[in-house]
Amino acid sequence: MREIVVFSGAAHPALAERICAALGVPLSPSRTTRFSNDCLQAQLLDNCRQRDVYIVQPLVPPTQESLMELLLMIDAARGASAAQITAVIPHFAYARSDKKDASRISLGGRLVADMLASAGAHRVLTMTLHAPQVHGFFSVPVDHLTALGVLADHFRGQDLSDAIVVSPDLGNAKDATQFSRLLGLPVAAGSKQRKADDKVVVDSIVGDVSGRRAIILDDEIATGGSIVELLTKLGELGVSEAAVACTHGLFTGPAVERLREHPMITEVVTTDTVPPPQDWPELTVGSVAGLFAEAIARIHAGESVSSLFDGVDPTHGPPQPSLFSR
Amino acid sequence: MREIVVFSGAAHPALAERICAALGVPLSPSRTTRFSNDCLQAQLLDNCRQRDVYIVQPLVPPTQESLMELLLMIDAARGASAAQITAVIPHFAYARSDKKDASRISLGGRLVADMLASAGAHRVLTMTLHAPQVHGFFSVPVDHLTALGVLADHFRGQDLSDAIVVSPDLGNAKDATQFSRLLGLPVAAGSKQRKADDKVVVDSIVGDVSGRRAIILDDEIATGGSIVELLTKLGELGVSEAAVACTHGLFTGPAVERLREHPMITEVVTTDTVPPPQDWPELTVGSVAGLFAEAIARIHAGESVSSLFDGVDPTHGPPQPSLFSR
Amino acid sequence: MREIVVFSGAAHPALAERICAALGVPLSPSRTTRFSNDCLQAQLLDNCRQRDVYIVQPLVPPTQESLMELLLMIDAARGASAAQITAVIPHFAYARSDKKDASRISLGGRLVADMLASAGAHRVLTMTLHAPQVHGFFSVPVDHLTALGVLADHFRGQDLSDAIVVSPDLGNAKDATQFSRLLGLPVAAGSKQRKADDKVVVDSIVGDVSGRRAIILDDEIATGGSIVELLTKLGELGVSEAAVACTHGLFTGPAVERLREHPMITEVVTTDTVPPPQDWPELTVGSVAGLFAEAIARIHAGESVSSLFDGVDPTHGPPQPSLFSR
Amino acid sequence: MREIVVFSGAAHPALAERICAALGVPLSPSRTTRFSNDCLQAQLLDNCRQRDVYIVQPLVPPTQESLMELLLMIDAARGASAAQITAVIPHFAYARSDKKDASRISLGGRLVADMLASAGAHRVLTMTLHAPQVHGFFSVPVDHLTALGVLADHFRGQDLSDAIVVSPDLGNAKDATQFSRLLGLPVAAGSKQRKADDKVVVDSIVGDVSGRRAIILDDEIATGGSIVELLTKLGELGVSEAAVACTHGLFTGPAVERLREHPMITEVVTTDTVPPPQDWPELTVGSVAGLFAEAIARIHAGESVSSLFDGVDPTHGPPQPSLFSR
Amino acid sequence: MREIVVFSGAAHPALAERICAALGVPLSPSRTTRFSNDCLQAQLLDNCRQRDVYIVQPLVPPTQESLMELLLMIDAARGASAAQITAVIPHFAYARSDKKDASRISLGGRLVADMLASAGAHRVLTMTLHAPQVHGFFSVPVDHLTALGVLADHFRGQDLSDAIVVSPDLGNAKDATQFSRLLGLPVAAGSKQRKADDKVVVDSIVGDVSGRRAIILDDEIATGGSIVELLTKLGELGVSEAAVACTHGLFTGPAVERLREHPMITEVVTTDTVPPPQDWPELTVGSVAGLFAEAIARIHAGESVSSLFDGVDPTHGPPQPSLFSR
Amino acid sequence: MREIVVFSGAAHPALAERICAALGVPLSPSRTTRFSNDCLQAQLLDNCRQRDVYIVQPLVPPTQESLMELLLMIDAARGASAAQITAVIPHFAYARSDKKDASRISLGGRLVADMLASAGAHRVLTMTLHAPQVHGFFSVPVDHLTALGVLADHFRGQDLSDAIVVSPDLGNAKDATQFSRLLGLPVAAGSKQRKADDKVVVDSIVGDVSGRRAIILDDEIATGGSIVELLTKLGELGVSEAAVACTHGLFTGPAVERLREHPMITEVVTTDTVPPPQDWPELTVGSVAGLFAEAIARIHAGESVSSLFDGVDPTHGPPQPSLFSR
Repeated sequence: MREIVVFSGAAHPALAERICAALGVPLSPSRTTRFSNDCLQAQLLDNCRQRDVYIVQPLVPPTQESLMELLLMIDAARGASAAQITAVIPHFAYARSDKKDASRISLGGRLVADMLASAGAHRVLTMTLHAPQVHGFFSVPVDHLTALGVLADHFRGQDLSDAIVVSPDLGNAKDATQFSRLLGLPVAAGSKQRKADDKVVVDSIVGDVSGRRAIILDDEIATGGSIVELLTKLGELGVSEAAVACTHGLFTGPAVERLREHPMITEVVTTDTVPPPQDWPELTVGSVAGLFAEAIARIHAGESVSSLFDGVDPTHGPPQPSLFSR
Repeated sequence: MREIVVFSGAAHPALAERICAALGVPLSPSRTTRFSNDCLQAQLLDNCRQRDVYIVQPLVPPTQESLMELLLMIDAARGASAAQITAVIPHFAYARSDKKDASRISLGGRLVADMLASAGAHRVLTMTLHAPQVHGFFSVPVDHLTALGVLADHFRGQDLSDAIVVSPDLGNAKDATQFSRLLGLPVAAGSKQRKADDKVVVDSIVGDVSGRRAIILDDEIATGGSIVELLTKLGELGVSEAAVACTHGLFTGPAVERLREHPMITEVVTTDTVPPPQDWPELTVGSVAGLFAEAIARIHAGESVSSLFDGVDPTHGPPQPSLFSR
Repeated sequence: MREIVVFSGAAHPALAERICAALGVPLSPSRTTRFSNDCLQAQLLDNCRQRDVYIVQPLVPPTQESLMELLLMIDAARGASAAQITAVIPHFAYARSDKKDASRISLGGRLVADMLASAGAHRVLTMTLHAPQVHGFFSVPVDHLTALGVLADHFRGQDLSDAIVVSPDLGNAKDATQFSRLLGLPVAAGSKQRKADDKVVVDSIVGDVSGRRAIILDDEIATGGSIVELLTKLGELGVSEAAVACTHGLFTGPAVERLREHPMITEVVTTDTVPPPQDWPELTVGSVAGLFAEAIARIHAGESVSSLFDGVDPTHGPPQPSLFSR
Repeated sequence: MREIVVFSGAAHPALAERICAALGVPLSPSRTTRFSNDCLQAQLLDNCRQRDVYIVQPLVPPTQESLMELLLMIDAARGASAAQITAVIPHFAYARSDKKDASRISLGGRLVADMLASAGAHRVLTMTLHAPQVHGFFSVPVDHLTALGVLADHFRGQDLSDAIVVSPDLGNAKDATQFSRLLGLPVAAGSKQRKADDKVVVDSIVGDVSGRRAIILDDEIATGGSIVELLTKLGELGVSEAAVACTHGLFTGPAVERLREHPMITEVVTTDTVPPPQDWPELTVGSVAGLFAEAIARIHAGESVSSLFDGVDPTHGPPQPSLFSR
Repeated sequence: MREIVVFSGAAHPALAERICAALGVPLSPSRTTRFSNDCLQAQLLDNCRQRDVYIVQPLVPPTQESLMELLLMIDAARGASAAQITAVIPHFAYARSDKKDASRISLGGRLVADMLASAGAHRVLTMTLHAPQVHGFFSVPVDHLTALGVLADHFRGQDLSDAIVVSPDLGNAKDATQFSRLLGLPVAAGSKQRKADDKVVVDSIVGDVSGRRAIILDDEIATGGSIVELLTKLGELGVSEAAVACTHGLFTGPAVERLREHPMITEVVTTDTVPPPQDWPELTVGSVAGLFAEAIARIHAGESVSSLFDGVDPTHGPPQPSLFSR
Repeated sequence: MREIVVFSGAAHPALAERICAALGVPLSPSRTTRFSNDCLQAQLLDNCRQRDVYIVQPLVPPTQESLMELLLMIDAARGASAAQITAVIPHFAYARSDKKDASRISLGGRLVADMLASAGAHRVLTMTLHAPQVHGFFSVPVDHLTALGVLADHFRGQDLSDAIVVSPDLGNAKDATQFSRLLGLPVAAGSKQRKADDKVVVDSIVGDVSGRRAIILDDEIATGGSIVELLTKLGELGVSEAAVACTHGLFTGPAVERLREHPMITEVVTTDTVPPPQDWPELTVGSVAGLFAEAIARIHAGESVSSLFDGVDPTHGPPQPSLFSR
């Protein structure tokens, strides 16, 4: 069987290290050089020939740097005669550019999907795409993982009486529904309206939240503005405290300050698909490294990724077919 | 300037005739032959060389026949040295296959998008895709029209006091919101839950519908099952009558019987993106032929399609940028 | 070595079962769903990851349905990370659309070949293409089998004195010549002329058939019109009885009635590349399942397919290099 | 309208000059350099930017040199921003490699078709392909002309009583049939059998030739071996004299000697798709330059090429749809 | 004729304004949005349909941002049905990554060329590529301009007796030779040796520089390290003062300080292919906007770009064929 | 592990035999047929299915024939289902066409690179490309070997006091520098100037050669004109004798006569990347077969090719990373 070789770009080497530890293989070294004219060059420092090469790089800020480094590393692996190149993109941030909601606008999600294939990626391994349709932007096979199980694990030991899962957005309601079933809770959702280019308001909540403790679930939190909006609305409707859970915890700009000190928030839970903020010791970060390692092991061994949770305690594991849809 | 040549497949020649009438060009003849082994062959009977060729064919039942005829006509136009080939697909039915919600499932929306490009289409002109992300499945430019204005026109003369726009599905709520603004009405949405492979129930309605007259808006109605489900729920919540509006009125299987005789339904309004059922004289069918003709004229003349409603009375026209997003 | 996984579309599962039995592997389950708008969706129900996937589907009526189901299954296998996808198309019916014999006509054979590659097929395994040039329409490798040996086996035990092989068409004469050598018989051919769009007459027979028993060989029989024409001409030239052999026995429309009751026909022999007609018990159907199984086994093992008949009794086997040209 | 620019490779500049004269445009200069390591380099010496560029080059011996020069000229035109590049290949000799009649053999016809597209040709204009299916090898549009009218013109003034058109090969019989109709003559065909790799014998003639004067029609004559074989057989059957007509008169190796001095041959008629042999003054060479010029003019003007003979005296012109099939 | 539409990314709008002024067309507005997760989205705010679209963006720091914005704008123009998209890249910085001089290294020049084509660029217009072979990395036509004439203009009025053109590098010597001919001067070149990864020394000068005034010519100056090295060597060989000229004056890091205050440097001359440093008032910047405007006008009008200098005073203009090689 | 199968075209079977001998595998037979119209057809006579196929063919005169034969063999291997096809091109002569140094000129190096990929080559194995940037012309991985070690071996036993390595061209100086380090010698280079299309003069020598014995190093010698020019210049500067070394010793036209009898030349050393001239017994030809065999073995085994010289005596082996750059 061909050997596995795992490389990491500069975006999140700690996650790559954890994945390698779980896989039982060393993280292979690489070197990215910045020329004096600001162009990048990537060099892979382990033999790739006829190997299954995995390159770990979430698209996190500085996002264009992360993307270009990933593309150059794929190009280097292709030139070095890798047998199979898998782009492991725990957070595919460009999935947010998934529709043409204005005239003559770019469709970044599809463009980046095409660029990955054009650079030489044979497969993409990713987690929690912003919309499930983004899967169809790729011409190469995509293995699409979910972090819902990891996030649900955190809440299982807690007293969840009176809790309710709340999605900030109707569009994200499907994931919230699945998450609520894992925890045996009811679900509600905010209905957003865009007031202006830079202003979104949550104008109503679908579902009865009054007197309950909210567990807010979102796919990505950047500045945290939507969460704060939602909390205000929830407060008006009789919610006094909330936990916040998200897969991709970017926490950019004012997010840490906003969320860390918000009077209604009891805790924030996220995963390590992206590097955590430096200055937030109370943040709970569950690791998805085990899921990625298991998926890589199964891809390498030719085993089904969709059956990743077979044989797991059903009260714990999510319903399999819906968890790992490809 | 290059000439326009318009052909029609067998799926909906009446619409093609209407588009041509609005454009002021004759519909060019073509011939599709079925061989004794059931294979099809298309022949275009007007000169295509260096012409802008438009082939009108919604993907309606028999859907595979409609699709294959369209592909063969595109192939014939390419072989005949057409300058630009536009697939005019008023109803792109395969958009419903837009995500991988089970293991090892086909992604028909992307596959058909690729097949159209591979056959030789340079551009697609379509209306009301099931999800806006499907736009990103195409590697060729897509002009994506909306029928909301045509449907709204029907209701403008009516007394709309106490009326409310209702979307059967949270996923479709954005279109319903836009529609409600055109009519100056509030909006509500059903929250569906899939009970089993063949059974969906509407388990709640978001928004206050009690005592109001509903105007239900959907993108496509096939068997009408979802509409009937929704009506039951609306009835429970104090709605006694409803109008039904949809862009793509397929009305397959039991749909005509179900909807025509439903006690709560006062009228059903649709468009001619697909051929109307034979046996339903009261059905109101607004024509989108004018919109398609105008879009074709603008494509041909190199004018903006997104400004299709510029200069129109603003109380009538929808907000321009959102109507014709590309 | 990678595992073999074989799926079947709805066109001819019985053949797929026979091929699997000969291979000693189970036929893997799949499910094709028809949505209420008549779109199809395919789901493969066995793990495909890193497997050699074979999908068995002749292009038989309803041909467009068969083709689309095959394309969707290929797409599903690609998305499920199959290592190699082989479209096993025992009858590639679109090969009949192989030339532009009129202005602005589609070239279905090439279009379908391109669509198979575009959907993700890495290889095609087929039998008795209508013209050998159709091989060149494919951009992927094609393994092209012949059923001549299977058909010849049927006649070997018979008394063949006074028999002569007759091709209905000069264009098909090469196969007839090869077939006649397998049986040690002379060969003759009809010279057809197309009188009008829907009428072909056999205006002469090349070769002396007078007083002989004919064994008519054709690649595909659909309505049987050409065979009846030929029999009339043969009757005029002193032939009183004939056997009919063909690889692809579609027998559509009036074919069964025409051939089953024709006074000159003593027997009809065909193969199971396509499903046999229901209502024709006397029809002799030789199976090509063994040949397909052997070819799949050799493809999988990396052995030569062209040497499929090496070591076989030369009076039985056809001359090897010419039988399995690729 | 974009300008026409016509270049010629080294294979047959005289034909390119004739085409340009008929078109009324000058032949644009180009320069092909041979480096000391025998590599070629092409330079186009007229502006190509946004022009319709036509490059005239039949694939004649030295065939590989002719092909490579053509590809380099196409590449140069692409790099120089030509709007449309048409490869005008009056004799596409690689069409003879059109099937896999042995194991692991190259399929040169398809390979060269792919190379032309890969170099940048947008369209191919050619004449009398060896088999009509070769049309399907090209992914770009092909305009496929015929020389039958030009060859028939030569015989129209002659006394054709007792004449019969003879095809050397059953495979070529369709062209011969069309040709015979243009002249109002019967038709016959030889039935060839390949005895060994280098030996073909004509073992019978289909049709009654006894006592008639033969007009032999072939698509290409290289060494003339098949013609001599056919003449021997015709002689045995009571034919004493024959005219020979072919579209592509290569006359390589012993052909001139064989045919010029053959006692049965009264005249040989060919066209200028390829350069004529130097040493054969009696050879009759009809020019196809007018047909190519007319086709180029129509391609450029966006007029139908298939209607090239509309309005011509019907006793002279061939039936239009069959003459210029595309 | 199709209209010209020119857009500018954020890298260098001043140059785009100058090009538009020279062309006599307005610069069309566009808007690039940065999402809170640091992804970019581009929107073009003028109609592109059937227009010739030019997007001006040199690849300057932040280089990855500049590149991604350019790709998104190309994608938006393609989706908006532009007729022809030209990426105007005055400085294609990734050309420095043009060879594999270490194991498993990326080849950024080729990768970025492929990405531009994959995003939808039909043509590239650029200036002074680091190596002329980089032209061959592009699959689309490239128009490759030179700034030598602009730089030479600066020196023409000066007293050039005792001056000599010096190239810092043997690899760049061809441009220096051409430049020296424009000025009627001798030429010399440094021979560099790479001592370690981060250290290059000029170990000798080819040509006699003793007692002369140097005019150093380079294609790009980033940190200015090579120039300082060269000056030291020149000083040792008896040169006491030098002018410095380069096409792409990036002047990153310590460059301004190093060069502005160097005792041997009398003046620095560059062009506006990239934005000039803020803090260097004495820097002489010649504009290439006129050359780009003229090239765009010729591309649009279908005129030769290589004849851009025809009819110009020969003592001023460089030898034409060598200036604008494509 | 997949089997290795090695074929040879007609260009240089002796080298293919040597490579096979070093690999310990037999050279597989193939047959190239020339049709009477001068078209070629290739047939591979060993099973290729699922094999790693290597086709050895330097692009030597007749270069177009060598190239076309190689392409046809690749096509045949692809059609025969080879797992991996490597074009082994010891001399890629078209690398000389690597830039556009005149208007509307072909870029043969890139065109041929594209043709190899289009025919089906998955990888290229080559030696000493004319410029390292040519690597970037290929879309498939390239393993790029060097013969410097082989050439240096020849000189190691000699008395090299007073010797100096001389490159005829500044452009080639990098290889000469590397070569000089292997031998511990100084280096010099000629500065060429092109006087007219057919005349190049060496106008100066960079480096002090006076009184030394020259070892001239070039990548390719065709007619030997540059070498003779250089010798004249060296003679003027006090060099009285010279050895000549080159990787690709084509020696076309007057080369043998010129070099063999030149009074200053003491010996000529080359390699067997191309067939040696017949009539030059004193020519020293080192073999690169071992290097190619080792590279093939490593490619096949998935081992690093760049580490080909690891563990070799450092005084003998060249610095590894620079020797086998890919």
